[in-house]
Amino acid sequence: METKEVSTEDAGVYNGYGSRGFIARFMTSEVSPTCEPLGIHNKFIICTGLLGGTAVSSSGRLSIGGKSPLTNGIKEASSGGTAANDLARHGIRAIIIERLPASDDRGTYVVVVSDEGVRLETMNELQYMGARNTIKALRQRFGEKAGVICNGPTGERLMRGAGVVCASPHGEMRFAARGGMGAVMGSKQVKAVVIIPAASSKVEYFDKAVFTEAAKEYHQMLVDAMPTIKKSNQLYGTTGMFKIVNELGLCPTRNFTLGAFDQHKEIGGEKLVELIQARGGDGKTGQACMNGCMIKCMSIFPDKDGKAVCSTVQYENLSLIGSNLCLGSLDEIARLNDKVNDLGLDTIETGAALGVAAEAGAAEFGDIDSFMKLMDEIEAATPLGRVIGNGVKTTGEVFGIKDLPMSKGQAFPGYDPRALKGNGVTFAMTPMGGDHTLGNCYGARATVPPLSCEGQGDLSRKTQLQMAGLENMGFCIFARSYLFKKPELFTKFTYGMCGTQMTVDEFWEQGHETARLEYEYNVKAGIAPAQDKLPEYMYRVPLPPTNHVFDLTDEELQKGRLC
Amino acid sequence: METKEVSTEDAGVYNGYGSRGFIARFMTSEVSPTCEPLGIHNKFIICTGLLGGTAVSSSGRLSIGGKSPLTNGIKEASSGGTAANDLARHGIRAIIIERLPASDDRGTYVVVVSDEGVRLETMNELQYMGARNTIKALRQRFGEKAGVICNGPTGERLMRGAGVVCASPHGEMRFAARGGMGAVMGSKQVKAVVIIPAASSKVEYFDKAVFTEAAKEYHQMLVDAMPTIKKSNQLYGTTGMFKIVNELGLCPTRNFTLGAFDQHKEIGGEKLVELIQARGGDGKTGQACMNGCMIKCMSIFPDKDGKAVCSTVQYENLSLIGSNLCLGSLDEIARLNDKVNDLGLDTIETGAALGVAAEAGAAEFGDIDSFMKLMDEIEAATPLGRVIGNGVKTTGEVFGIKDLPMSKGQAFPGYDPRALKGNGVTFAMTPMGGDHTLGNCYGARATVPPLSCEGQGDLSRKTQLQMAGLENMGFCIFARSYLFKKPELFTKFTYGMCGTQMTVDEFWEQGHETARLEYEYNVKAGIAPAQDKLPEYMYRVPLPPTNHVFDLTDEELQKGRLC
Repeated sequence: METKEVSTEDAGVYNGYGSRGFIARFMTSEVSPTCEPLGIHNKFIICTGLLGGTAVSSSGRLSIGGKSPLTNGIKEASSGGTAANDLARHGIRAIIIERLPASDDRGTYVVVVSDEGVRLETMNELQYMGARNTIKALRQRFGEKAGVICNGPTGERLMRGAGVVCASPHGEMRFAARGGMGAVMGSKQVKAVVIIPAASSKVEYFDKAVFTEAAKEYHQMLVDAMPTIKKSNQLYGTTGMFKIVNELGLCPTRNFTLGAFDQHKEIGGEKLVELIQARGGDGKTGQACMNGCMIKCMSIFPDKDGKAVCSTVQYENLSLIGSNLCLGSLDEIARLNDKVNDLGLDTIETGAALGVAAEAGAAEFGDIDSFMKLMDEIEAATPLGRVIGNGVKTTGEVFGIKDLPMSKGQAFPGYDPRALKGNGVTFAMTPMGGDHTLGNCYGARATVPPLSCEGQGDLSRKTQLQMAGLENMGFCIFARSYLFKKPELFTKFTYGMCGTQMTVDEFWEQGHETARLEYEYNVKAGIAPAQDKLPEYMYRVPLPPTNHVFDLTDEELQKGRLC
Repeated sequence: METKEVSTEDAGVYNGYGSRGFIARFMTSEVSPTCEPLGIHNKFIICTGLLGGTAVSSSGRLSIGGKSPLTNGIKEASSGGTAANDLARHGIRAIIIERLPASDDRGTYVVVVSDEGVRLETMNELQYMGARNTIKALRQRFGEKAGVICNGPTGERLMRGAGVVCASPHGEMRFAARGGMGAVMGSKQVKAVVIIPAASSKVEYFDKAVFTEAAKEYHQMLVDAMPTIKKSNQLYGTTGMFKIVNELGLCPTRNFTLGAFDQHKEIGGEKLVELIQARGGDGKTGQACMNGCMIKCMSIFPDKDGKAVCSTVQYENLSLIGSNLCLGSLDEIARLNDKVNDLGLDTIETGAALGVAAEAGAAEFGDIDSFMKLMDEIEAATPLGRVIGNGVKTTGEVFGIKDLPMSKGQAFPGYDPRALKGNGVTFAMTPMGGDHTLGNCYGARATVPPLSCEGQGDLSRKTQLQMAGLENMGFCIFARSYLFKKPELFTKFTYGMCGTQMTVDEFWEQGHETARLEYEYNVKAGIAPAQDKLPEYMYRVPLPPTNHVFDLTDEELQKGRLC
């Protein structure tokens, strides 16, 4: 950034690696593990998965990487939206923003990708603009079909609860939410990356026939499953989980002091769909957040007059800014969710921080106005707002709250580890701390009971390996259950794209290698294995209604260590 | 604390170890390195040096230990005042406060030591009381000669910039300032430890004749040096340094952006003494902070009417809350210093945090009123006040300031490492981060020039070893230059007290072992060697007037590693 030079390079040794796989390898080679996350030596990485830009359903996730200012370790956060496919169709697999602007440079910059190449524009008029208007302004300027990756005002102000926004087809905001990567983007003073669609795709295949065959086979699986997809994913997205999570008593409620919410029926997936269908207007279920997706889990939640409020309300939103704050109304949750989104914040980190703030008396559980006031503080960047915008650890430390729902400085998502013990292993043992995307054990609850003390380490480990494999490709989590039935598809896709021949075992080993590199990066960053732990109160304070504490042995926890 | 039980134990394996030496061994054996600093498993340690309670001059330092909430590593902070001698005369070498009060326990507790034993009293009336009034109230209740160790309101509120207060004979506040140990004390809800003097001393000697001979020899050295002591220590304390530090260009000024202050003559030691002498009244130099001290470096600074404002203004105060905030008046500095003290805050951490806050626009450099307003915010425990009360790291992170003068989460004291490179080694390599008390290289500036790139690692290492040895005994830093001329005195004192026979080499080795234990504790706490570093901007941004950056090689830095 200091020089504002734009240069391009061949993929080189990174050929064959996408998303998390690419980020782990790039960080290992090119970013000093001891660098300051918001300093001159961190790099802000935007990249696609291996299948980005292809017509394969649900493979167009965008990945954001760098050293996290929340965990001080390596981070990959991924998002839906159209940008990854747009980028890949230009033949671009990654954009890396290096160094910092000069100290007297107050500019706000936009990276513009077009058929003419990549350039940097100064657009100071976008400084501190909300994410929604930023997307709107950029699409007005660069075309309604432009892919947009942007930062909200909180990321620009270096608040470490900020995520990175990636726009969906109609301007809805998707998030590479976790790890405070919006603050890293903000440190570079890059407000947005805009991708004007390529006139023709530059995606190259090593063996298109093999690739197409695999794609057909995979798409047929989705077609076969379509009746189920329509009844579940397209209707509820992830919100269908809410009811079950409540029944299992693992739903973050009242700042992680309860595992079930008494008003759960008012804010569950069924109620969500009922309201969307009854209200009509802008309200919709079954929307695709990226081109070519057959699963289409996105919804648009309308207000009473049918006007769009928020897209998309998902499970983590219902729990972290719903039950966790004792908000028993979807209208309230959607309003708060939209504000969190527009400010460019991670709903998980922010929901957890708001819960701690309420615990400290800065807001009242169940009172939406008190939480909206805190959002106004964040928007105005007051000291109180900045505290909350910096996430759960800062909020807790500033307010002197000792028991904080987090691991490695990052807030827990919507699964209390006392009642879903496998996720406790994941939160404790993985390099990214309180992040379920590295190995969510919820889906295996039928085989390993969430409250059992046995099998959790192995389950977490297995799930971590699956995710590390999946996340090289750029696939959405919703594709997992289909693809895992036939992992040969992964090897065929890889061969078809870039000619790398591997067995299924080698495919999994590649994911394992990604996780190993991440782990080693963290150790070199000074995050020793001693930091692989859960907060002490989880071991001591029982969680109603199951009244379980987190009681896995250290030996069991260690089974969840991939490296 | 949960049970509020008081029990006593023999020194056992800890016999022969005091202060930092005791704390390193006790923490290693009894406090899990991965515990949460403000949680149930950390312990709050109060202890004396090996010579506490004897008549040996300047040996009555009190040590406070535990796991630091600023660095997340081991911490020993030491203080003058009368309490250590008082405690030792009861035959008590250490008080350990374990666990936490029950979660619904809002009590404020005081530990009372008397000839009848040790008991716990509830004194809720002291909650959130300023340190000065707390000392006053406790001495009214328990006698004017009672030793008092207490917490200010900031420690009670778990602000991590809080130190622990130890009263001097007339109620002046001394500080075990660093590491946020006031917050650890606050987490235990112990407002104070009061020691009602023992009717007769229970200090025991293994061989009093040897001990007395050593004491006489040492005291004769002080008598011989008395003309110098009177002209320097008794007149200026540490403030005599200010002029030289300014000349050398290493004095923290304007939030560590300059190394010299243009108004330095207005706030240096000479001006301090001139005002104290001219104003008279309560103003005094040459006071002893503990009984039996012959060096007597404490001063009392009076206002224009001769009324005491602050005791004692020392070098670190002049730099961190003087030049660092561009305050060019001793009256202003004394006023701010007194407020910082009364709230129970560390002047170094708080001064650095105020500097960062000014950088962020929350106060104005040179404007005392703007800083006093921030102190009011701290006292009122507003969000802004809590942020600053939590120290330089939290203040910087909340305000989005990237360049922070700190190491391992703890603020730098009054020596910019760019212009006193040996202290850069100490700040980077020692387990307690930005803390000069582990190895201040300033004193050796004649032999190793502060700006030189050579010899700094070895110098820091040598100084670290000296300090680790000295700090087993409970000696004040001002005794160092005399004792180091004749280190046989250390072995004689040790033998005379507890019968341990050792050579001078073994004495130094004992200090080295202390440092090794501290280092190992930190590694087990998850503070890997990768965290042994200085902030990046120190390597990049030159410091006027020398215009040096910190440019030691990694190899040179590593020479400063004791373990």
